[in-house]
Amino acid sequence: MRIALDVMGSDLGASELVAGAVLAANESNSQITVIGDEKEIRSALGSTGDSGSISVVPATQIVTMADSPFDAVRKKKDSSVVVAFELLKKGEVDAVVSAGNSGAVMAAAIKFLGRLKKVSRPGIAGIFPTLKGPVVMMDVGANVDCRPKHLYQFGVMASAFSRVMFDVERPKIGLLSIGEEGGKGNTLVKGAREFFEKSTLNFIGNVEGRDTFQGDVDVIVCDGFVGNVCLKLSEGLAEAILSMLGEEIGKTLKARCGYMLARGAFRNFKKRVDYAEYGGAPLLGFNGTGVICHGRSNRVAIKNAIRVADELARNKVNDHIQNMLEMDHLE
Amino acid sequence: MRIALDVMGSDLGASELVAGAVLAANESNSQITVIGDEKEIRSALGSTGDSGSISVVPATQIVTMADSPFDAVRKKKDSSVVVAFELLKKGEVDAVVSAGNSGAVMAAAIKFLGRLKKVSRPGIAGIFPTLKGPVVMMDVGANVDCRPKHLYQFGVMASAFSRVMFDVERPKIGLLSIGEEGGKGNTLVKGAREFFEKSTLNFIGNVEGRDTFQGDVDVIVCDGFVGNVCLKLSEGLAEAILSMLGEEIGKTLKARCGYMLARGAFRNFKKRVDYAEYGGAPLLGFNGTGVICHGRSNRVAIKNAIRVADELARNKVNDHIQNMLEMDHLE
Repeated sequence: MRIALDVMGSDLGASELVAGAVLAANESNSQITVIGDEKEIRSALGSTGDSGSISVVPATQIVTMADSPFDAVRKKKDSSVVVAFELLKKGEVDAVVSAGNSGAVMAAAIKFLGRLKKVSRPGIAGIFPTLKGPVVMMDVGANVDCRPKHLYQFGVMASAFSRVMFDVERPKIGLLSIGEEGGKGNTLVKGAREFFEKSTLNFIGNVEGRDTFQGDVDVIVCDGFVGNVCLKLSEGLAEAILSMLGEEIGKTLKARCGYMLARGAFRNFKKRVDYAEYGGAPLLGFNGTGVICHGRSNRVAIKNAIRVADELARNKVNDHIQNMLEMDHLE
Repeated sequence: MRIALDVMGSDLGASELVAGAVLAANESNSQITVIGDEKEIRSALGSTGDSGSISVVPATQIVTMADSPFDAVRKKKDSSVVVAFELLKKGEVDAVVSAGNSGAVMAAAIKFLGRLKKVSRPGIAGIFPTLKGPVVMMDVGANVDCRPKHLYQFGVMASAFSRVMFDVERPKIGLLSIGEEGGKGNTLVKGAREFFEKSTLNFIGNVEGRDTFQGDVDVIVCDGFVGNVCLKLSEGLAEAILSMLGEEIGKTLKARCGYMLARGAFRNFKKRVDYAEYGGAPLLGFNGTGVICHGRSNRVAIKNAIRVADELARNKVNDHIQNMLEMDHLE
């Protein structure tokens, strides 16, 4: 697959993202088009050049984290994110990966790709590590005020994603609520439950916040406000726990020695919960494939995000979404 | 202060809660009325008897976790939770503490206490440990569909609680949203922000999920659906992290030895994040004081919850709430 990588506007700078492209090119068959400041890209590529599976497309403007997404996409016509989505629209690439302003990526997708037929609200799927496999949560930030039907469609889209990405035949879908009984939840969740019960999806009922990390479901559905809070709360809590643990360990020599011995275990643990392992959050519901990466993404995260984009495009996740929506035919 | 402790319906059984009452009686001046199955209570009290600061009031019925809250409160007239709230209503105790069915505690508060003047929606405040001091989140489960005014009132109530409980002169209040800028959030949050900006509260703006555990604010305001998800997600994630770390440490002898050396640090860490340290979640906005404890509360948690109830009643948190609402006079 041909992947456009927008290397501008992230926290670690273009050279780290270019390094991610090089890693991906070495480990996979993806053809990667690196988009951004040409001088920076060429210097980061060094002697590798744009040989073989990496090519460079210059873009002179940058959408920063401070830019207003829709304005930026309208006005900065030669920004890397706009150039990337134009290539996708023209069919010159199969997917876009970006670690820049995620609102702008969303805005560019709306402008250049448009919604998939039958999808009311495209959204963003987040991947969480759990005690077992990964769980997909949707929506994690694109839609803050939702209707029941939107939640049902998030379930369809995340389910299709879980299938093509993690090879789960019939992903188990849970509706995030505040109690497992059907009567528990707010008006939105109660309404969404009716949709899920009528659907052909593998809906297993309500799940609670506590269940998120048990790994007993493959997909968790919620509105974008709740999902974004969950995503950031989890990130903040994981950091706080490790930081508190570090403080306690630092207090005595004995504990510090203990840590030295157990260092390998800590390293493996960090790998298990590291967002970089999953690479990015796919945009689902658009006429085209996009993956949003964390602003702090390192080269490994970028390599993995390229892999996610490649899988989604190769396995035609959008066709699955379309088919599932048509099969259910719920309005 | 005189505290009624409902010892029925929790996970660890009446004897653990009675032990909590004994701890509290030994360490404080609280007068504790233990309510529940008389035989179980007497046997747990043993030779201590109901001497001095502990007395026993029998209740023959139990509201279980499976009971429907409002039905149970209406029908089980001699249940421990109903008897406790009747004592509070009659002025024979100053506060109620319960680790039973929390919906039933809420229902009993609605039935026997009623709302404080000017409070539209009473709620439940949760206490989260952070890198610095504790943070109070409200609402964590009582109100799943809210209007902007309700969120503002949660801010007032949680602020009064933070003041009397943690001695914070002017608690810093953050509104939980998905971005720090004022324009970010759903319709509810944007509406609530207008209330906060007009209020005399120490409102510092939006906070994100990530900020919850940084300890830079004293109070975080959200609706009860979001708050309950946050509470349970945090609990689940903390457990999952420790369990993953335990798995990794268990894999090699070297890491296990390291853990043995660092055990004290792990113990201190667990104490820092242990919900038992905070004891319980206060009901705020009622004509009376109630504290809900986790179903799994051990004796230490119960002792601390009794302390919370005692502080709230002694410092007249309800008068503070009333005054603040009258001062702001926002409709």
